[in-house]
Amino acid sequence: MCRMLVFKGESPILLADLLTRPAHSIIMQSVNCKLLLDWRRNTNGDGFGIGWYDEPQESGCIFTSTLPAWGNLNLQRLAEKIKSKQIFAHVRATTGGTATSESNCHPWQFGNLMWMHNGMIGGFPKIKRKIQASLKEEIYLSIQGTTDSEHAFAVFLNQLDDPMKKSFTYTELKDAMLKTIALLNQWLEEEGIEDLSLLNFALTDGENIVCTRYVNRSDREGTSLFFSSGSKFQSEENGQYRMIKANKREDVVVVASEPLTYERTDWLVVPTNTVLVITSKFNVLQYPIIDKHHTTKKRSTF
Amino acid sequence: MCRMLVFKGESPILLADLLTRPAHSIIMQSVNCKLLLDWRRNTNGDGFGIGWYDEPQESGCIFTSTLPAWGNLNLQRLAEKIKSKQIFAHVRATTGGTATSESNCHPWQFGNLMWMHNGMIGGFPKIKRKIQASLKEEIYLSIQGTTDSEHAFAVFLNQLDDPMKKSFTYTELKDAMLKTIALLNQWLEEEGIEDLSLLNFALTDGENIVCTRYVNRSDREGTSLFFSSGSKFQSEENGQYRMIKANKREDVVVVASEPLTYERTDWLVVPTNTVLVITSKFNVLQYPIIDKHHTTKKRSTF
Amino acid sequence: MCRMLVFKGESPILLADLLTRPAHSIIMQSVNCKLLLDWRRNTNGDGFGIGWYDEPQESGCIFTSTLPAWGNLNLQRLAEKIKSKQIFAHVRATTGGTATSESNCHPWQFGNLMWMHNGMIGGFPKIKRKIQASLKEEIYLSIQGTTDSEHAFAVFLNQLDDPMKKSFTYTELKDAMLKTIALLNQWLEEEGIEDLSLLNFALTDGENIVCTRYVNRSDREGTSLFFSSGSKFQSEENGQYRMIKANKREDVVVVASEPLTYERTDWLVVPTNTVLVITSKFNVLQYPIIDKHHTTKKRSTF
Amino acid sequence: MCRMLVFKGESPILLADLLTRPAHSIIMQSVNCKLLLDWRRNTNGDGFGIGWYDEPQESGCIFTSTLPAWGNLNLQRLAEKIKSKQIFAHVRATTGGTATSESNCHPWQFGNLMWMHNGMIGGFPKIKRKIQASLKEEIYLSIQGTTDSEHAFAVFLNQLDDPMKKSFTYTELKDAMLKTIALLNQWLEEEGIEDLSLLNFALTDGENIVCTRYVNRSDREGTSLFFSSGSKFQSEENGQYRMIKANKREDVVVVASEPLTYERTDWLVVPTNTVLVITSKFNVLQYPIIDKHHTTKKRSTF
Repeated sequence: MCRMLVFKGESPILLADLLTRPAHSIIMQSVNCKLLLDWRRNTNGDGFGIGWYDEPQESGCIFTSTLPAWGNLNLQRLAEKIKSKQIFAHVRATTGGTATSESNCHPWQFGNLMWMHNGMIGGFPKIKRKIQASLKEEIYLSIQGTTDSEHAFAVFLNQLDDPMKKSFTYTELKDAMLKTIALLNQWLEEEGIEDLSLLNFALTDGENIVCTRYVNRSDREGTSLFFSSGSKFQSEENGQYRMIKANKREDVVVVASEPLTYERTDWLVVPTNTVLVITSKFNVLQYPIIDKHHTTKKRSTF
Repeated sequence: MCRMLVFKGESPILLADLLTRPAHSIIMQSVNCKLLLDWRRNTNGDGFGIGWYDEPQESGCIFTSTLPAWGNLNLQRLAEKIKSKQIFAHVRATTGGTATSESNCHPWQFGNLMWMHNGMIGGFPKIKRKIQASLKEEIYLSIQGTTDSEHAFAVFLNQLDDPMKKSFTYTELKDAMLKTIALLNQWLEEEGIEDLSLLNFALTDGENIVCTRYVNRSDREGTSLFFSSGSKFQSEENGQYRMIKANKREDVVVVASEPLTYERTDWLVVPTNTVLVITSKFNVLQYPIIDKHHTTKKRSTF
Repeated sequence: MCRMLVFKGESPILLADLLTRPAHSIIMQSVNCKLLLDWRRNTNGDGFGIGWYDEPQESGCIFTSTLPAWGNLNLQRLAEKIKSKQIFAHVRATTGGTATSESNCHPWQFGNLMWMHNGMIGGFPKIKRKIQASLKEEIYLSIQGTTDSEHAFAVFLNQLDDPMKKSFTYTELKDAMLKTIALLNQWLEEEGIEDLSLLNFALTDGENIVCTRYVNRSDREGTSLFFSSGSKFQSEENGQYRMIKANKREDVVVVASEPLTYERTDWLVVPTNTVLVITSKFNVLQYPIIDKHHTTKKRSTF
Repeated sequence: MCRMLVFKGESPILLADLLTRPAHSIIMQSVNCKLLLDWRRNTNGDGFGIGWYDEPQESGCIFTSTLPAWGNLNLQRLAEKIKSKQIFAHVRATTGGTATSESNCHPWQFGNLMWMHNGMIGGFPKIKRKIQASLKEEIYLSIQGTTDSEHAFAVFLNQLDDPMKKSFTYTELKDAMLKTIALLNQWLEEEGIEDLSLLNFALTDGENIVCTRYVNRSDREGTSLFFSSGSKFQSEENGQYRMIKANKREDVVVVASEPLTYERTDWLVVPTNTVLVITSKFNVLQYPIIDKHHTTKKRSTF
């Protein structure tokens, strides 16, 4: 299973403080385990990618690699120098026979938009043609790889009036996200596919962020997703990081597949089948996704 | 421009004797130029691939890399150990914005068939949907990359009754090749595309070989293609290799974008818009491709 | 921690039957775990290498990569085609700050000899100059990387009269191995280094094999090492493999950091501080390494 | 032959304006040639590296790759976002059998210092031990690769009182550079080596720059080196760039193996056996290197 991470802050954070230095960062977990001579660890070693924005209303920058994140010198060096207020990061474990190639590394970008996915679309090959047939020409031709995740991004882009716009409202982005999930469900149903789909998506225009935690079942939980907010994400000692809550303001929001710190109370679970929005003004909004897979009953973990 | 090479012999040849040792091999040209301190040389440095067969009626093996061929230690080591009677090799220079990824390295294989391409389909993006729409499901889903060359292979496979068969006649393969070129031309015309297409394809089932030299113009030459045959391809001195013609038998046939030896008389030009067949019995057959781009007049080189 | 594997058979085995197909092979463990959605697994994702011999008294062939073994298409394709009677395989997890580079991937070769290492030389940087100073010129200059493991190989080569010989007796090789360990210990002591060293080495000339399980402590176990022998290593069902013991003859010997099959009774533990020899005639010999770290008391695991 | 490039400006330049966009940039030359269907071009395809500084008196950042620069998506994306006042860039062609590995990509850094080299030390293997023996421990252990260029950097570092200092005078750096060349010459002479050495080095502390153009012959020219200065390096049209000289001030200095623009009058030749200094105040100083290879007679080009 892949892992992903979203950061939004009023002030820029050094990538290293988010990605490589924290003892429980998505990238450093492996290294710590190594130090402990405990060789069981997360592997997500089939490539990684980071995306970040320098300026609002400009496109972000992406750095990807098919090499594992933990030994990547370029990543370590860039992370020690680059600061950003808006960061996406993704470590990848291939599912099925998908090739390890840079074209298949998250995140992807199109204009000012950036996208990543944790999970998979069950039965994707059977709806691949439908997806491609639905796309406007320039979106269809922008697809470089073969993954379900990149195709889901294409579906998202196709719901927008103008995906090359400089700026979006969070409502536009949230609506396009909901349409994307609805369309994927519709196509899967048309083909009679009942495979499990895990749709934890993350999307940003550099200012607003829309994430989902979604599963096409009403009886089980989706892939984990957490968020944490506060006034600062900073290092304590021994590589431990904390979300500081110095005042009422929320100047930092982090969304992650797994908590980045050992303080579990800092982290809130995003409920299954929810869309989570972080607006450009740092408002954190949650909406249940109401469709046939919605339920108010307890779901089972797996 | 890419380069490609096809070898077929009665006896196995060490890959090194074809690929890395000859002074004018497709891979070693660069190294020689380096030694001469002449830094102008062929670059084809965007990856390479080799394919070879051990046994008739079994699938071949492929080794590809996005690193330049000339500095690839694995290639050098494998080439010193592996022998084969049937070899494909390709060095790649990307055209346009196609990503350098292993999925985009020639040759590709499907069952026992192997394919490579030197050239490009002009206006490919505009007929990509038509190509994909024409394909049987398992062929459509087998596409891993984004190149025109791999899509042309898919069109070829789609013309065969059963591309997973163990064995083919050369006529089947030649006919499917001609249909492939005809279909590509038809789709390009339907879209009103007049861009230049250079279709030097090479296809084998491990026993028969079908190559083309083709251009969609009647007034100019296609990308270069040569062949040479004899009783043995062997080293002389100083890294020079020769095609030995010891008797009337043709035990070795080589097809290449450029002559591999300095003895130009050893090499025959394949005429533009021709399909060249080397049968499993070592018969070398040439057929003109008769369509609207056929001509008996002199074509211009470019 | 790295893992390594040594195979010697009377008949050649397809690399895939040893490396990629077994459910518990050193390479496939990760994939299985993935299927189980259990993302805790062995990672050894910092590159791998395989070495094999075609002919006795010829040098072997090596294929290495800095990409994780599990997603490597070239490895999968080569493994389905290459057969050998004598195979080395190694998956690597970097320790400390050593770069992930092909020069740092096991195994290494020199003439007909091949070497790999599971473990580390504690305090290696402090004896690096001493090691280099002890080496004959051509051995010193043959070092391409920066690892302790490659330097240990250089020390081993330096103990041989002529490391470029075609053929060796197992006694020569065993003696050179013991001298290597003794010298490393001596240099570490001269520098007052008391760090833990784990010296599981594997060495072959293509016919004889010498392995060690060694730690520079008398109170603890070394890194795990097992071996298994029988008449055939073959697949049962569901990716399960078994060591078949059809008769008294030992036609197959496997040495591995971890058992490759779930049948624990097939696997014998190599005692800590032992040198294990498999002769060209398939005799399996074990000798305790008698030095100050030898003990007959129980050692602690860690 | 490699190529290198040094930029120093009063204002930051976007890396793309120096490295990827100019029609004759060290990286884009290949692409242009490709468009012209002229496949003879510079190849330097065995990796590349860029180094840049954000802040004075801080260490720089380095991005290297063993893939050719021209197809590297990460390079293209980073170059479109990163700005710097102080930039090093290097494209590499391996000489001899040196492996293509990230450890062997220029530039290297140590503390705030950064180093690259265009050329080679003739007979390097024969003085490698002498070089290593001369080094302080922390410098010796910092060597990650096997190249002559990285070892020359180590010799340079060894001439400084404290290579980890934050700030240096240009005189310190120039003197250490001259001692480095003198020592290399001395060791080569002691070993009776008369091979050609081409020592075009570039060194910076982030503020001062010291470059050399040097050959250990008095009768021939060294590898080419040019510089250009002005008030701005900016784009005209069609990918053409110009060095603008709007006023007397020199706000931009570029040093390069080859001119980056087609305006040859913008570029001055650095004479063979010269050390070129660009001070933190943008003074450009040249000093002849006076030793036995110095001459006032005409040297031959080669």
